[in-house]
Amino acid sequence: MKENKTGMRKSKKAKKDREIATPKEIASRIKNTSEIIVKEIKSNKDPSFTTMQRGKGNVVWDEQKRYLGLGEKTIVRNFLNVAHARKFMQTSMIMAKTNEYLLQNKTASIREIYYELKHTIEGTKENTFEGQGESDPVIVDLEHSVNTIREKLNLHANPKGTLYGNILLKDKMHFNDKFNASKLGRGGWSIMSRIEPEEIELLETDAEYLLVVETEAMFERLIEEGFPKKNKCLLIGVGGQAARGARRLIHRVHNEMEMPVYVFTDGDPYGWYIYSVIKQGSMALAAHSEFMSVPDAKYIGMTLDDVETYKLKNVTENMKEGDIKRAKEMIEYPWFQNKEWKRQLEKALKEKIRIEQQALANRKLDFVATTYLPEKIGKKDFLP
Amino acid sequence: MKENKTGMRKSKKAKKDREIATPKEIASRIKNTSEIIVKEIKSNKDPSFTTMQRGKGNVVWDEQKRYLGLGEKTIVRNFLNVAHARKFMQTSMIMAKTNEYLLQNKTASIREIYYELKHTIEGTKENTFEGQGESDPVIVDLEHSVNTIREKLNLHANPKGTLYGNILLKDKMHFNDKFNASKLGRGGWSIMSRIEPEEIELLETDAEYLLVVETEAMFERLIEEGFPKKNKCLLIGVGGQAARGARRLIHRVHNEMEMPVYVFTDGDPYGWYIYSVIKQGSMALAAHSEFMSVPDAKYIGMTLDDVETYKLKNVTENMKEGDIKRAKEMIEYPWFQNKEWKRQLEKALKEKIRIEQQALANRKLDFVATTYLPEKIGKKDFLP
Repeated sequence: MKENKTGMRKSKKAKKDREIATPKEIASRIKNTSEIIVKEIKSNKDPSFTTMQRGKGNVVWDEQKRYLGLGEKTIVRNFLNVAHARKFMQTSMIMAKTNEYLLQNKTASIREIYYELKHTIEGTKENTFEGQGESDPVIVDLEHSVNTIREKLNLHANPKGTLYGNILLKDKMHFNDKFNASKLGRGGWSIMSRIEPEEIELLETDAEYLLVVETEAMFERLIEEGFPKKNKCLLIGVGGQAARGARRLIHRVHNEMEMPVYVFTDGDPYGWYIYSVIKQGSMALAAHSEFMSVPDAKYIGMTLDDVETYKLKNVTENMKEGDIKRAKEMIEYPWFQNKEWKRQLEKALKEKIRIEQQALANRKLDFVATTYLPEKIGKKDFLP
Repeated sequence: MKENKTGMRKSKKAKKDREIATPKEIASRIKNTSEIIVKEIKSNKDPSFTTMQRGKGNVVWDEQKRYLGLGEKTIVRNFLNVAHARKFMQTSMIMAKTNEYLLQNKTASIREIYYELKHTIEGTKENTFEGQGESDPVIVDLEHSVNTIREKLNLHANPKGTLYGNILLKDKMHFNDKFNASKLGRGGWSIMSRIEPEEIELLETDAEYLLVVETEAMFERLIEEGFPKKNKCLLIGVGGQAARGARRLIHRVHNEMEMPVYVFTDGDPYGWYIYSVIKQGSMALAAHSEFMSVPDAKYIGMTLDDVETYKLKNVTENMKEGDIKRAKEMIEYPWFQNKEWKRQLEKALKEKIRIEQQALANRKLDFVATTYLPEKIGKKDFLP
């Protein structure tokens, strides 16, 4: 990371092999998998396809890497097994189509690939796919089988989230546009569904940390208060649970720009869960933590201690059943086994209250920007 | 509208008095209303506050203006009426606080103003507001009473929606940033919750029409295909029902840049309803149609006729109960009383199928951009 005269630091490139892979490389992995199948067919063997077992039974908490990962259990699907044949056919179709996308530089939403491939098989009444519920799991199979994420298969889900702050980005797939996310008025940049280093480059920044904000309304508040400029930080508004594109961007800013990540959510089990997914990954996407997690992320607030410290008792709300259930689950997770979080979750289960980030407005509209966040950051008053 | 050498057209300014109003003007309207109350108090009269009656009973279909409006029925609240006293107090608080925002150039979300004003009244156990469910209706009261929209009271709800295309905008409240929404990579500009002409100026564009798109995924598809550049248009992705900021921007682009608006949604009653809200307004916001509606907007698709024309039978889905219920309601609305829409809704109720915009991928991923939209626009094949 080098600093130039303007105080802007250049990014270091994403290093890991798996994080950077050209479409050609991924296509060749698909080709390799296909060639094994073709070989099996030619030698009159039952063709097979191997992927990873998913679900709780194969999710592991990787203590060294400090994120959720997938275990070693694999699944083999055989074409000559009546129970597997349909899925085998679907997998071949998804492989062929994503291969085509990669070679033609096209991308598609997971809904589009479903629609593109759905048809009635000639001479039968059988549809290739009955619904997206059939194509989505096959996409996950393929991700695991060729050891990558769907973004690198040129697939994506819906975009969500907004970036603001003094960072220069470049989109190599769109006229090599260079744009600074602090110069788009107060609206910010709409984060794409796919943020891969092969396409979107993070060029330079003068920001000292990245603040991830749960609600878009708080994101707007901090911009109105001039917080990012005064405090030299970037903001990402995730709008609830972070979408894959937003998680990928948070991960990349952290790694490529060597920037601490602080997460700011509502003070309730849902908000804390949003934090834990950004930090350690989720069970559903355990295989992708390497691409998306930020184990060094810190939690800045809201906490139930804030209720007392900042005199917010009057603007708490009662926790709902869903919150209580979630807190009970979270308190058992290996990655919440530290005294600070155990204390916080126990407090939540005892007091059964929650506090929203926007409730800080009760002190004053700008309190969050002038007092709450600067104090917490100054004192490094974080949860782990 | 003048065209310069580069083919970029300048916007004409929003003309109507009500659409442009400085914070000072709005503050003075609040002051006037308050002064009447003070006068009543001083002359020992029961102070009163007048607003408009809302709900179906006072919503009218304005045939001349071609949008939903509010009728003439008013409501008077008296402070010395036990049933009104609490709301009267709440209204005064909202008036004082929004007045403060306006004079200090602050804005707040409707959740923040609730939190900012919530407190226990000294010497009692009574809270000023028990929940946002109490403050939101008071905000609407005030909008009607001072004849404006909450955006001009410096209030806003959550932002949603994305803008893409060759249009130059300026944010006067943020370093006078000028930015072109076609030069932000493929991500586009995240539309703010408030898009008022006093703050956000639409400077110039070379676009010939504005295409409003229901899903963010289709928005991304059209950008990937280079559709806006090839077809000289702007795109706004609304992500379902359009948020107020997005509606305000659509309205302003239409009026200030004299640009036709085409709306592209899923082919189902929910999508058609999204269109009708953009075009004629909604019952809930009937008072604000003047600020938000676009009576000249046209509907480009999807229609149930598209299913046959474009051979999409295989990728339709069954309508759900909610869709059927909505279609039955819509067929009775005065603003759907034309033969094209009646036919479409009857067809929906008969066939009970729906067709998504992403289902066009069944023909080919780029079919929507190379064939479907250009054909429809070329032939002016719209629903009214």
